[in-house]
Amino acid sequence: MTNRKIGRGVAMVGAGMSRFGSFPDLDTRDLFVDAFQDMRQSVDKGLDPKDIDILYIGNYSSDLFEGQGHTAPLMADWVGLTPIPATRIEDACASSGVALRQGIIAIASGMADVVLVGGIEKMSNLPTEEVTDTLATAGDVLYEIPAGFTFPGFYAAMATAYMHRYGATPESLMQVGLKNHDNGALNPKAQFGMRIADIMAKKKARAQQKGRAIPAWSDEMDFLHDDRANLVIAWPLRLFDCSPISDGAAAVLLAADDIAHRYTDHPIHIIGAGQASDVALHDRPDPTTIGSARRAGRMAYDMAGVTPSDIKVAEVHDCFTIAEIIATEDMGFFEPGRGYVAVEEGLTRRDGPRPINTSGGLKSKGHPVGASGAGQAVEIWHQMRGEAGSRQVAGDIDIALTHNVGGTGQTAVVHVYERRN
Amino acid sequence: MTNRKIGRGVAMVGAGMSRFGSFPDLDTRDLFVDAFQDMRQSVDKGLDPKDIDILYIGNYSSDLFEGQGHTAPLMADWVGLTPIPATRIEDACASSGVALRQGIIAIASGMADVVLVGGIEKMSNLPTEEVTDTLATAGDVLYEIPAGFTFPGFYAAMATAYMHRYGATPESLMQVGLKNHDNGALNPKAQFGMRIADIMAKKKARAQQKGRAIPAWSDEMDFLHDDRANLVIAWPLRLFDCSPISDGAAAVLLAADDIAHRYTDHPIHIIGAGQASDVALHDRPDPTTIGSARRAGRMAYDMAGVTPSDIKVAEVHDCFTIAEIIATEDMGFFEPGRGYVAVEEGLTRRDGPRPINTSGGLKSKGHPVGASGAGQAVEIWHQMRGEAGSRQVAGDIDIALTHNVGGTGQTAVVHVYERRN
Repeated sequence: MTNRKIGRGVAMVGAGMSRFGSFPDLDTRDLFVDAFQDMRQSVDKGLDPKDIDILYIGNYSSDLFEGQGHTAPLMADWVGLTPIPATRIEDACASSGVALRQGIIAIASGMADVVLVGGIEKMSNLPTEEVTDTLATAGDVLYEIPAGFTFPGFYAAMATAYMHRYGATPESLMQVGLKNHDNGALNPKAQFGMRIADIMAKKKARAQQKGRAIPAWSDEMDFLHDDRANLVIAWPLRLFDCSPISDGAAAVLLAADDIAHRYTDHPIHIIGAGQASDVALHDRPDPTTIGSARRAGRMAYDMAGVTPSDIKVAEVHDCFTIAEIIATEDMGFFEPGRGYVAVEEGLTRRDGPRPINTSGGLKSKGHPVGASGAGQAVEIWHQMRGEAGSRQVAGDIDIALTHNVGGTGQTAVVHVYERRN
Repeated sequence: MTNRKIGRGVAMVGAGMSRFGSFPDLDTRDLFVDAFQDMRQSVDKGLDPKDIDILYIGNYSSDLFEGQGHTAPLMADWVGLTPIPATRIEDACASSGVALRQGIIAIASGMADVVLVGGIEKMSNLPTEEVTDTLATAGDVLYEIPAGFTFPGFYAAMATAYMHRYGATPESLMQVGLKNHDNGALNPKAQFGMRIADIMAKKKARAQQKGRAIPAWSDEMDFLHDDRANLVIAWPLRLFDCSPISDGAAAVLLAADDIAHRYTDHPIHIIGAGQASDVALHDRPDPTTIGSARRAGRMAYDMAGVTPSDIKVAEVHDCFTIAEIIATEDMGFFEPGRGYVAVEEGLTRRDGPRPINTSGGLKSKGHPVGASGAGQAVEIWHQMRGEAGSRQVAGDIDIALTHNVGGTGQTAVVHVYERRN
């Protein structure tokens, strides 16, 4: 089915998100209401919620994080959409990327004209160790978790294999974090709205304030090599190689191309939507690439009739810094083994030839896992419409891409977007 | 969207299930493999698994029941379907009924020709109280569960309201259990393959064997009134008013009408697919009906162009006996308040004018919650093709229906099936 076009064109006509962060006083209902309101305000010609035919909600595990299952109809209720069909989609951290694809399929089927795609996750209720254990359920609990793997461990194994094969170093990974914090500092919705230099300065100021010895970091790389400031989580991954524990929600409004003009004169068309599955990591021949992402990418590119060189801006799944490097290779932006060089050379910076994760990515924007895929689409919405403020990429962004991974790549989903005016 | 037809026709071309029951040595992977093999054997002209474009898996909470999330790609792997898109659908106990609808939408969109829809749940790992708590997460954990509600409590509240309004009695409910056990006794896949008379006889024999006093039950109703043999769970619901804790899986193979002939000359077309959401029970004006089911039913009937009187056989969601009575009213088979009379008069028996739950229903066949919706479709497959063995309903079953509810009705999904030759 890789060569199929989407039968009926589909466009984003609105997109919004809550702030991502740690919000002890909010639950997923509150966060989704925030995202819905933000989305609604983004619809140029206004939205009557009665127009929405179907709700898909991407969520990894409100069961485990909040003790609340059956979340989709609950979300429908809290934004006033009852009694429309409301369905939760789960594919680990790719849940709302996959939900977006279900929305496209539903419109293509003719059974819906307007679909709301949401993503939600509220992770900060649990202590960190329990979050780690909860996320580990997205691995293979029979064959991987009993061997001691957690997600930092999975991606550390991928990182060491990648470093061994291609000569990348921990410093290559650090460059991803530096870049994504630079971007996130310009995103008012980001969990960590600070450059790493700002974080250093803040830590120095706090030490001074408390009368402690002021750390003598000479520059950001010096800071990132400090074992106390930047703990080793699972070597070679340190704290600043890992996306945070986050709460957040995102919402994307889809409409059939033929009626998109009711909502905006500047829709963002989704012209490619690929998804693939893979076996668990322990069963794969090569841990330096994610096969499902390559396959989903090919499917999306083929549908869209574009090639990697057409992509002007991309949001990719940087749950860990190594994941971004591998993603940029899997999406065909760089040859295998060259992704880390590209980062070191600054090619993926906001002002580089191939901007990646202008939102700050999961690393800096935050990673409320079930919301991250839809959150990526929100950034694409802003960038393609020229509404990304101080982090706006220059030039004509006519084609863009999102890449969203579940688990270690048992699921991947890729979308290609087009702006026509 | 209620009046839309399914744009591209869709048919069931295979259906199968594991046994439902309590299987301490099996997990969902094993159960799904069993269901897949059973489905595969049902495909008249054989199935090359490479034909399958997409997998949807309905599952309520393998996270909570087994500590394993991200189950869809895992299921794809275990039946050899990697790397196709694999997505979990969750709408509580309606999960695989909703997954079936997603399969239909995917084929209607043209993005898939052949879709496998699975349902899985493995509940028996946990002690009974924990299962009850786990299922309660499908209620509203902010407003309902803290008030002491569990699912037997929810449906007991619906039952008392129904009895108060319409004059039904606990004995009306017992008639549902008697009928469904009569049917389940003829289903080799059922968890409780025994009539209630058989259960009584077995209990008497065991008492005799152990030298205990032999219970003096005069007949089934006498047995069902015995507080020891038939515990009150949440009045008026007793043990035999409640579906059991079950392990099981089901699998349904869908193909576009235009290619169904590759798999069988006797496909079962799905001509109506309705889904709706509702607010949680505490927020509804009338607990004697499930509004989402009425709405989903209207949607399915309208799509199919049929009326309730056209339905020859129906599987409805009898998680509790009261739920079946309400379902038969919500589906338009009987007027509000007349469903219980219909059961008392035997109208819904296998040999009656309106056979309901010929499989034994969730009550006797078992209720592995995420598998139940797909399991209903398996029974329809057998009945419509005249392959239901000793429980086969007589006459020409050209139109049939399934009705699957999530939670207390925050989700409902209804399908209408047609046999054309």
